[in-house]
Amino acid sequence: MLAEFLTEARQRVDTALGQLLPAASIHPAQLHEAMRYSVFNGGKRVRPALVYATGRALNNDSERLDIAASAVELIHAYSLVHDDLPAMDDDDLRRGKPTCHKAFDEATAILAGDALQTLAFHIIAHNHSIDEDGSRRIGMIESLALASGSRGMAGGQAIDLAAVGETMDIAQLEDMHIHKTGALIRASVKLGALCSDQITSNQLERLDHYAKCIGLAFQIRDDILDIEGDTETIGKTQGADIALNKPTYPALLGLDGAKERAVDLRNDALQALEPFGEGADLLRELAKYIVDRVS
Amino acid sequence: MLAEFLTEARQRVDTALGQLLPAASIHPAQLHEAMRYSVFNGGKRVRPALVYATGRALNNDSERLDIAASAVELIHAYSLVHDDLPAMDDDDLRRGKPTCHKAFDEATAILAGDALQTLAFHIIAHNHSIDEDGSRRIGMIESLALASGSRGMAGGQAIDLAAVGETMDIAQLEDMHIHKTGALIRASVKLGALCSDQITSNQLERLDHYAKCIGLAFQIRDDILDIEGDTETIGKTQGADIALNKPTYPALLGLDGAKERAVDLRNDALQALEPFGEGADLLRELAKYIVDRVS
Repeated sequence: MLAEFLTEARQRVDTALGQLLPAASIHPAQLHEAMRYSVFNGGKRVRPALVYATGRALNNDSERLDIAASAVELIHAYSLVHDDLPAMDDDDLRRGKPTCHKAFDEATAILAGDALQTLAFHIIAHNHSIDEDGSRRIGMIESLALASGSRGMAGGQAIDLAAVGETMDIAQLEDMHIHKTGALIRASVKLGALCSDQITSNQLERLDHYAKCIGLAFQIRDDILDIEGDTETIGKTQGADIALNKPTYPALLGLDGAKERAVDLRNDALQALEPFGEGADLLRELAKYIVDRVS
Repeated sequence: MLAEFLTEARQRVDTALGQLLPAASIHPAQLHEAMRYSVFNGGKRVRPALVYATGRALNNDSERLDIAASAVELIHAYSLVHDDLPAMDDDDLRRGKPTCHKAFDEATAILAGDALQTLAFHIIAHNHSIDEDGSRRIGMIESLALASGSRGMAGGQAIDLAAVGETMDIAQLEDMHIHKTGALIRASVKLGALCSDQITSNQLERLDHYAKCIGLAFQIRDDILDIEGDTETIGKTQGADIALNKPTYPALLGLDGAKERAVDLRNDALQALEPFGEGADLLRELAKYIVDRVS
């Protein structure tokens, strides 16, 4: 059931993104080509899948979800382009393909990332079909901006860069991940939820708690895969984090301790979903997938 | 009258930005410090002045204008931080002070620029005092995003980078400037206008034409100052554009031709303001200032 849904979600958001991104023939063509190259990079589309799964749990309208799913993926894509830059993580490959600054050049990669971020906000603001008066769109933009900026994802990247070679305790490590990856995963669930016409504050709180838990579990699994994963399957060099002396969950909790923590977080996430009916089964499956995935 | 207004506008937007930017003590502190450093760089605040002057012409509420003025300045500040990067224009100094990547480091400068852009959209979405339902804020965000992205400012920078060492005709040069600087200047006037409760489509069109004209005039004056200006007064190395073999108006039209074109554009801008009363005098003064300025 989940595999089918993930394929469907990926196809759905890719179709939407294909229409929302300016064509590569539109002036300035190289920039638009670099933007499309960076978005269509073979990514798993986990964040869009969370948007759609949240929508399914709340019986949301799918057109609104397409915009929300595309927006979170555009923010994710922009962050990868900038994270890969020589001054940041200096990665030549992403999912086996040259990174944006390798396929084009550094200046183009900086601008492509910049413009992908802008586009995320533009597509929400521009799509009047989401609501008439704009109140829903404003809430979506506010949540997405808070999750992406200096107190969210960009802040997490700053914390990460400052941490290379430093000693971190578990609280500092969690603080970094809550910013770096957790904020956008929470925003994915929140944007999916905000597309709903009727949602109670209790539902919103429970979904947010679910998202917080799976966001951290996702990162712990990433750290575990860096040790256990196969280079080809995970799409980046196995052991890269250890080689960079980056703080990781297994380094702080031991490999078994890290696995236990991931399972605890998954259970916590599942508990938050208890009052939701069968519609939330995809969210449940996603929580399990995040902890068990091999890539 | 204009000097007083420019001082007042600068103080007003600086106060607003000081409150809207996260304090440098807030975690992650270095990123927030870099963001504040980049915004409080001694800039003239021409774009905020345009927001306030447009507001004055339409009797707008000043609190709404503060948010609009801050948002356009945040976008401008982000673009300068990224433009100065080694992979882009590679500038060590801006207004006599080390550029962000020199004062901090490249990674911090990339992230500070990223987060300044995000903050621009966040402050508009977050400020419920602008309107209750969000329709005005959505219009502001849509205009600002369109002006900033790949079909606006970021696109202009891409065109500019591709143009170094290339031959350009006047149409290509104008296309570049319409994107690179013109779009955000137009957005400044538009956001100032959108703060108004009552504005006719004719008024909006006229103000937009005014903004288009002064946007180009501003760039022509920049090119002229690169030749005639004093390095200390203009705050960057005199003759830098010529040294980089960048296409400029004086190179294509001659120095006198470029000056004539700037004056024509100013007159065109003033004509667009004709139906507006004395309230638009500041916009008129700004049009003159842009063509006559020495820095």
